Amino acid sequence: MSETLSDTAFLAAVTYNADGLVPAIAQDAASGDVLMLAWMTAQTLEETLRTGQLTYWSRSRNERWRKGATSGHTQELVEAYIDCDGDTLLFKVRQNGPACHTGARSCFYRRRSSEA
Amino acid sequence: MSETLSDTAFLAAVTYNADGLVPAIAQDAASGDVLMLAWMTAQTLEETLRTGQLTYWSRSRNERWRKGATSGHTQELVEAYIDCDGDTLLFKVRQNGPACHTGARSCFYRRRSSEA
Repeated sequence: MSETLSDTAFLAAVTYNADGLVPAIAQDAASGDVLMLAWMTAQTLEETLRTGQLTYWSRSRNERWRKGATSGHTQELVEAYIDCDGDTLLFKVRQNGPACHTGARSCFYRRRSSEA
Repeated sequence: MSETLSDTAFLAAVTYNADGLVPAIAQDAASGDVLMLAWMTAQTLEETLRTGQLTYWSRSRNERWRKGATSGHTQELVEAYIDCDGDTLLFKVRQNGPACHTGARSCFYRRRSSEA
């Protein structure tokens, strides 16, 4: 089960929250590792699809944020998905360098230890 | 680069939003596919770690929601991760049946077509 959407249909399918944001999951297209979750506005999503460079909205700095603009650790868009109810995005990306500002490959480098 | 956290440390590391919720990504432990994103409270996260059954908070029904409680499509916890700033959770799960209420294996069954 799979559907494909034009850019217009994709953009129209998104439901934004009260702040005009939608969560976006970035997944390494090669390894399948989940790298990070960040947020997009309608404008940064449109920019992401148009430029092929993952572009988010920084909630802390309250500004548009092209991933890697300062660090060089850019994310190139490989595939874009939207979930069943349109309130979450998933991007398969080609990650240049670490995704995390700590220098870790993925932001999810802390794991619950298996012992209870 | 990897750290392991006790349950106590894991629970203490979470930053909840203004509604007391944290986004939780469920990833198929076997295939690596991202299945869905849902939300947890401190209580449903604690229940998830304690029982090994993914348990969320339904924002539409405003109630605790053990995944698969009615459908049988449960998610068994394999591994739990928390991101660098503690505001997103990632769970590797054993998914029984489809994860999506539409019957799709993953909620991300809609893909942007590659032509512009």
